[in-house]
Formats: sequence, structure tokens, C-alpha cells
Amino acid sequence: MQRKSWATENCPMARSVDILGDWGSLMILRQAFSGTTRFDDFQKELDLSRNLLTARLKKLVERGVLERRLINEDGRRHEYVLTEMGEDLLTTVVALRQWGDRWLFKPDLPPVTMVDARDGREIQQVHIHAADGRELTRSGLRLRPRVPESAS
Amino acid sequence: MQRKSWATENCPMARSVDILGDWGSLMILRQAFSGTTRFDDFQKELDLSRNLLTARLKKLVERGVLERRLINEDGRRHEYVLTEMGEDLLTTVVALRQWGDRWLFKPDLPPVTMVDARDGREIQQVHIHAADGRELTRSGLRLRPRVPESAS
Repeated sequence: MQRKSWATENCPMARSVDILGDWGSLMILRQAFSGTTRFDDFQKELDLSRNLLTARLKKLVERGVLERRLINEDGRRHEYVLTEMGEDLLTTVVALRQWGDRWLFKPDLPPVTMVDARDGREIQQVHIHAADGRELTRSGLRLRPRVPESAS
Repeated sequence: MQRKSWATENCPMARSVDILGDWGSLMILRQAFSGTTRFDDFQKELDLSRNLLTARLKKLVERGVLERRLINEDGRRHEYVLTEMGEDLLTTVVALRQWGDRWLFKPDLPPVTMVDARDGREIQQVHIHAADGRELTRSGLRLRPRVPESAS
């Protein structure tokens, strides 16, 4: 398959997609957020080929999303754990999950919902807000070149 | 490449990834949000092979994210436009973009930033909020089976 790298583009979306846009990577991320750490468990839960899973995990480790840690003395067992950078993808994961909730179960409701651990109530839908708190849609957003601090 | 469909899983994240997780699809989405509509423009901007782009666009249309519309009389030109369902991915796109902003340009700042069209100020980072407004992190979230309305 023809592949282009977007790792050095000036667009943050392109760089993010370069890390997460391979088939399987977002599902590995889902599993990592739900607590999966072992290669064999990822393999079983996602039913990906071992070769594909190996390649995906390797890339996620190299790019800083997962950390590969030794978990026993004989040096042969490892676990894959979200780094701080990986944990910071939570907003994206929840936004994507909520989109699936809204669109991909019709006419039914999704069978599982995401709730606040403290009070058990459903969490809010993730929204985009202006600095002053207004909710924004696409027409309310612009891209703007950042002014270097020294020039402002 | 071995491929598993996640289209019928009970998890909304899995169903979302089944639509958007192919290599290239998230970048097509980025272009659609920035106003690209023509096949040739997607092709030029993303540098994907025509075969791959054709397959990706076809799937996004079939799954309801994009609409393929006729744009002139001879019936030979089409444009690809986000549907309401596609537009609703904005939150995910912005969350992913902001993640890239935070992590993938260090030590520099990203050259372009997303601002409020009304006042030009940078928008807020997307966050996850509880029903009562508290900001939530991973440890504050739980998954819970939804109780059918008739049973509640």
C-alpha cells in the first residue's frame, strides 16, 4: 500500500494521524485505556495478527504513546502502558466514542454508557468552547498563524 | 493485511474506528473540514494513490460521513461534502488536533492555532466534564450498562 508520512507536516492533525492513523492503532489505544497491558491480551481482545500487532505496538512505543516495561525477573515478560502523552489522548477517545454513541446504534441506544465514577451520572457530551465559554461549531472556528512571542 | 470488522461490536469506539480507522481516512476528514470537496483536490493535497483515495471516499460515503453530490449538468463531476453525521466529528478532530499541538511540536509551538472566528482568541482545550461540570480524567470515568427505559 502506498504510504506517505505526515510526521513532519506543520499541521498538528497530520502529525497526530501519522501516529494513530494506521489500521488497528486506535483499537489498541481503546484497549490500553480499558486496562489491557499484555501482548497476548491485546491479541486476543482485538483479534489482530501477531505481526500487525507487533508493528503497531512498536510504533506507538517509538512515538511515545505507550511505554514498554519489563514485568518480571527473567527479562522475558513485558507490559505496554500508556505514557503521560498517551493518557492525554483520553479526550479524543471519549469524543470519538460519543460520536459512535450518537450515530452508530440507531434506532437503538448503545448498550453501555460512560459515567462519572463519583455519582454514576452520565458524563456530558464533549464540546468545543471559545475562551469566553461559548460553544463553537465549525463556522465559528478559524485557523490562524501563531505570532512568535518575540514579535507580539 | 489481515482485517477484522468492528462494525457490529457493542462498543461505540469500535464502531467508530471501523469507519475512520483505515489509513488515510482521518486525513480525508481533515481536508473535508478545511473545505476540500473534489477528488482531484483531495488527491493533490494528501498525495494518496487514486485507488486508495477512491476506496476511502467510497467507504466514508457508504457509512454516512460524506455525501457524494453531482455538481454539473453533464453528470460527470462530483463533490464530497460532510453530512450532518460527518460534521459532528468536529469535536474529535479538534481534540486530536489539540493533542498534536500539545505533544508533537516540542520544543517549539505549532505554527498555526485554532481561534474563535468572532474575537480571534484561541479556543479552549477540549475537556471531559461530569454532569455537574467537574473536569474528569481517566480515573473519574466508568463504563456502565445502560438500563433500558422500560426498566428504569
